[in-house]
Amino acid sequence: MIIKFSSDSTEENRSQLRKFLEENGFSFNVVRTQSNLYGVSIGKRQIDIRKVGDFAGVKDVFRVSDTYKLVSRKWRKDPTIIDLGDGVRVGEGNFGIMMGPCSIESEEQVRDMVNFLFESGVRIMRGGAFKPRSSPYSFQGMGLEGLKMFSNIAHERGLKIISEVLEPSQIDDMMPFVDIFQVGARNNQNFSLLKALGSVDKPVLLKRGISGTLEELLNSAEYIYSNGNERILLCERGIRTFEGAYRNVLDINAIPVLKAKSHLPVIVDPSHGIGLREFVEPVGLAGIMAGADGVIVESHARPEEALSDGQQTLNYSESKRFIEKANRVVQLRSELNNVGI
Amino acid sequence: MIIKFSSDSTEENRSQLRKFLEENGFSFNVVRTQSNLYGVSIGKRQIDIRKVGDFAGVKDVFRVSDTYKLVSRKWRKDPTIIDLGDGVRVGEGNFGIMMGPCSIESEEQVRDMVNFLFESGVRIMRGGAFKPRSSPYSFQGMGLEGLKMFSNIAHERGLKIISEVLEPSQIDDMMPFVDIFQVGARNNQNFSLLKALGSVDKPVLLKRGISGTLEELLNSAEYIYSNGNERILLCERGIRTFEGAYRNVLDINAIPVLKAKSHLPVIVDPSHGIGLREFVEPVGLAGIMAGADGVIVESHARPEEALSDGQQTLNYSESKRFIEKANRVVQLRSELNNVGI
Amino acid sequence: MIIKFSSDSTEENRSQLRKFLEENGFSFNVVRTQSNLYGVSIGKRQIDIRKVGDFAGVKDVFRVSDTYKLVSRKWRKDPTIIDLGDGVRVGEGNFGIMMGPCSIESEEQVRDMVNFLFESGVRIMRGGAFKPRSSPYSFQGMGLEGLKMFSNIAHERGLKIISEVLEPSQIDDMMPFVDIFQVGARNNQNFSLLKALGSVDKPVLLKRGISGTLEELLNSAEYIYSNGNERILLCERGIRTFEGAYRNVLDINAIPVLKAKSHLPVIVDPSHGIGLREFVEPVGLAGIMAGADGVIVESHARPEEALSDGQQTLNYSESKRFIEKANRVVQLRSELNNVGI
Amino acid sequence: MIIKFSSDSTEENRSQLRKFLEENGFSFNVVRTQSNLYGVSIGKRQIDIRKVGDFAGVKDVFRVSDTYKLVSRKWRKDPTIIDLGDGVRVGEGNFGIMMGPCSIESEEQVRDMVNFLFESGVRIMRGGAFKPRSSPYSFQGMGLEGLKMFSNIAHERGLKIISEVLEPSQIDDMMPFVDIFQVGARNNQNFSLLKALGSVDKPVLLKRGISGTLEELLNSAEYIYSNGNERILLCERGIRTFEGAYRNVLDINAIPVLKAKSHLPVIVDPSHGIGLREFVEPVGLAGIMAGADGVIVESHARPEEALSDGQQTLNYSESKRFIEKANRVVQLRSELNNVGI
Repeated sequence: MIIKFSSDSTEENRSQLRKFLEENGFSFNVVRTQSNLYGVSIGKRQIDIRKVGDFAGVKDVFRVSDTYKLVSRKWRKDPTIIDLGDGVRVGEGNFGIMMGPCSIESEEQVRDMVNFLFESGVRIMRGGAFKPRSSPYSFQGMGLEGLKMFSNIAHERGLKIISEVLEPSQIDDMMPFVDIFQVGARNNQNFSLLKALGSVDKPVLLKRGISGTLEELLNSAEYIYSNGNERILLCERGIRTFEGAYRNVLDINAIPVLKAKSHLPVIVDPSHGIGLREFVEPVGLAGIMAGADGVIVESHARPEEALSDGQQTLNYSESKRFIEKANRVVQLRSELNNVGI
Repeated sequence: MIIKFSSDSTEENRSQLRKFLEENGFSFNVVRTQSNLYGVSIGKRQIDIRKVGDFAGVKDVFRVSDTYKLVSRKWRKDPTIIDLGDGVRVGEGNFGIMMGPCSIESEEQVRDMVNFLFESGVRIMRGGAFKPRSSPYSFQGMGLEGLKMFSNIAHERGLKIISEVLEPSQIDDMMPFVDIFQVGARNNQNFSLLKALGSVDKPVLLKRGISGTLEELLNSAEYIYSNGNERILLCERGIRTFEGAYRNVLDINAIPVLKAKSHLPVIVDPSHGIGLREFVEPVGLAGIMAGADGVIVESHARPEEALSDGQQTLNYSESKRFIEKANRVVQLRSELNNVGI
Repeated sequence: MIIKFSSDSTEENRSQLRKFLEENGFSFNVVRTQSNLYGVSIGKRQIDIRKVGDFAGVKDVFRVSDTYKLVSRKWRKDPTIIDLGDGVRVGEGNFGIMMGPCSIESEEQVRDMVNFLFESGVRIMRGGAFKPRSSPYSFQGMGLEGLKMFSNIAHERGLKIISEVLEPSQIDDMMPFVDIFQVGARNNQNFSLLKALGSVDKPVLLKRGISGTLEELLNSAEYIYSNGNERILLCERGIRTFEGAYRNVLDINAIPVLKAKSHLPVIVDPSHGIGLREFVEPVGLAGIMAGADGVIVESHARPEEALSDGQQTLNYSESKRFIEKANRVVQLRSELNNVGI
Repeated sequence: MIIKFSSDSTEENRSQLRKFLEENGFSFNVVRTQSNLYGVSIGKRQIDIRKVGDFAGVKDVFRVSDTYKLVSRKWRKDPTIIDLGDGVRVGEGNFGIMMGPCSIESEEQVRDMVNFLFESGVRIMRGGAFKPRSSPYSFQGMGLEGLKMFSNIAHERGLKIISEVLEPSQIDDMMPFVDIFQVGARNNQNFSLLKALGSVDKPVLLKRGISGTLEELLNSAEYIYSNGNERILLCERGIRTFEGAYRNVLDINAIPVLKAKSHLPVIVDPSHGIGLREFVEPVGLAGIMAGADGVIVESHARPEEALSDGQQTLNYSESKRFIEKANRVVQLRSELNNVGI
């Protein structure tokens, strides 16, 4: 059960409620996010939620039977919109395109990409400075200095940036420079990192685990939310299967199902979802048609020279074509929803 | 290597070629389909294919490095179009909608569905008479009598029908009544059945195995093709994974990749692909956007009363909405391809 | 619910029972096997099974909540022992080693292997005459003539043989020559074949599907059993996963779990379970320690020259060592069970 | 290529070698572990390794074609033995049993378990103080205070302890109290944590990722090794599949294959590997028969009251029986290896 407290709820109010709930065999967690105060209460017995609603300081009470609570759509029907400022929004009618290289490699590369994106109307640039690589001997990214450079150049032209964080100790350093923290698939259940991101006042894009279930993804989002940060984007990036013809299988089913289960926006990552450059476009457009609120795509001036992920990276002309087609698909989707067919 | 013979190629010609190939360490299979005569030759050594082209009776020679040969796009760039007669075509610009119940249940059900589809502009009706069920105690379908009834009613209104065949001995009985033989996921590597369907002069829709690779699917299609039948439709129907939130994961990647690997048309089955009625539409539309040449969807007047697969079956109003949206997506896809963006 | 009828139960008795059950919302299937007469009745409502037990001709009644019924251990606690005659038994204390080549290739090969097995004390020889191969251009086996030759030579020395059947129409031809029919992983849900094997008076070894669940395996066994044949061996042969270091993952868990769920014996196939010759031994011994009632192993005088599966096939000295070790592990397992530790 | 330096190798020596290698298109990483000094050099071109061997300060040079290097068996044939002091060793003939509760819950629980293990001859106790849980509302462990209590009581009786670490910042705090750091499946690719554990002078048990490949596991071990810590135990704990009858599928194949690929000891975790208490014994014994150097098992005085993982936890009498049987299986395995059969 989720309890929404009014702004004038007192600690005394909550203590009394805690006493009542615990006597009835329910746990009680107070969750203070950047914008709201909630109680999350879990128990096996039946309880008359109207009694909970009668306590002083309680604004509203919702039953939520899912294992995740605050990220569930069961209590919050309106979709969450992530506002990045300067008119850049993602969610519910605001389609977000995030594009850029796998790794930040040089100032020239960043400047060139920033110009390309600016001219193409893309408002959010991706780029990794700390790279999680399977082998310790692979390129590990340019680190904080690379991130600063990336941030400065992108912000000059008004682009927002998203970049991956690997551990709690990086958060403070990265904070002034990123607009969205990205949590990669390998860290989907790095709960220390998720908790630490709960206290951050910046949006977090959370990728599904390599073989993570939707329930695990939503519970991981719950870690961030219940530690204080309501601004989360979920990202479907393909799952690991037996099929060897591509790197991953983009789980298209996850897109509409996540949107039904949660009020959080859902982003599709076709680059990792298939891992083959020539098929990023059809898979990405399919993800949009399935209902994604945004797309994150790897792009590079010369993919064959990229320091990582070149085989799944679009060049500029492919990127441009993708953006144009994506916008057309978004438009059709909106028409189909609006005319009620 | 694929060798295409001219129509005046003689047995003597082919014997000489066989001798040459076998001396060079190559196998040689003559494949006589309903419309063409081929040689399929496999070997590990290098051979100068111009020498093969110089043999009498040889029209053309193609190197094909895939393990499957005749179904590969490497030798045949033009996509195959399946012509069902009466202007009903599937493939390359001819989008095919196949709709109907999981199982044929009664004359009334069939008649009602035929009328619904006719009025909705759908030209191909699906319906199972022989049902492969996990448990021997589940409803096994109405059998041949059900199929005859289905066929008669559908053909009266000019609909084509597709129905599943389970074993070679059923083929002759079903032959006069079906327009497309369907091979289910469980029979994807039932090679006896595939061989038998090679000698049939009707199209075959071949579903991918429950955990079948694309290479296995294409090799299974090769069984049909190399036994004489060139008219094959490939069908992506979801794969089995660890995710418990839905019955299968529709492998959206498979659609563009199969189309790149093979000249055969690709059909998407969102009903089995997700297994949840409320999400059949977004997943099906995504499949179209990814490039599918057709869609096969379970539909029923009252899904909750269906004898099988009710939980993934659309009712009439959902079906109607799906058809309208599908047509709009097909149209957009065609525009995006044509204007070259 | 399973109803066991007495030998003097009449059709009239069963009609009355059927009437009662159907009035109470239960289905009723009479199952006549080679040795018993059962009723299998399924329904959702509660029913007092004592009332069923009071009907004339009813010997015993058992509640079985599993989706499979007659193969369940819930009604039959004593394990099934498969008796092949001449003192060759598999199940419950009778450990069965089945060994031999993937494919029958020549008379010399068979004769040599028969001698090797005879001298090593192995009583059951495997060997495929009809081979299910992914590609139509691969070696498809020596066919019926090969099987006859195999059967004659093996039977001369008193070996029992197991060989794979691919379709119902082969059963009659194979019947005089095999001692155990093998159903391969690809045919695990070829229900036509399973039904046809129900009417056969020879044991059937049923391999788990490539990605088949235990419940599907047991339901497939139920097809054979409920069509008349109680003599079934279940076989764990590895499942398909994301791991590329070996062909399959032998599911060691399946062995004790299948034995707990069913009264049928369980055979482990380490050759397909890992697909790498050098690891067949440790994986096979592990399967025995986990509780397998038998093992089926690919062996060949010269694995590197085998026409199929050479990379997972033991040579004679490896086979001999495996047999000796297997016997030691069986002995230890038996000691550990007997002394009650 | 791995270069082993002699103890008198100078920085100057290594600079010259670096220059040579980089000129030949090879990378060069100096790796200083707690006991050795290596160079790891990776490149695509051919190089005459004898030339490398001729450089001053170079003791030995090994070609290693695997993506992981220092953990590979290709250069180090002798298996690594982990010495925990006081005669407790794991690896190559030293079988290690690690047993204890999933979570540390109370002083009484720990004291009781310590006594039980001591009397049963088990020398290593497991117990989690920091618990990674899917949901933020689940019990998260007793934390550092719990760990101190656990450590004190266990060390009093001479037991070694293993406990899970979740993030780099915990390492210093945990250091005085644990004998083995455990990295859980969810953190298998938490590279920040792995790097940090490289500088620790205590052994690390590294669990395979939930759907991690063997290659990923070995590369993750390489992160620890190449950051300085050679004392690593690999742990197979089951992989995620489609099978719903148990929590995971213990990948028995991984055990002999990891031992062939790496010189590090391999531990089997049957508790997580199947997740069902009644089957932990057969699966664990199978793991030993397959070649595991040790086993880690969840045990609790009253599993039904455990705060986590109760459904897969043995009680004392089951634990005792498991220990006795495990020792017998280890003994048989050793006999089978020694007599050369």
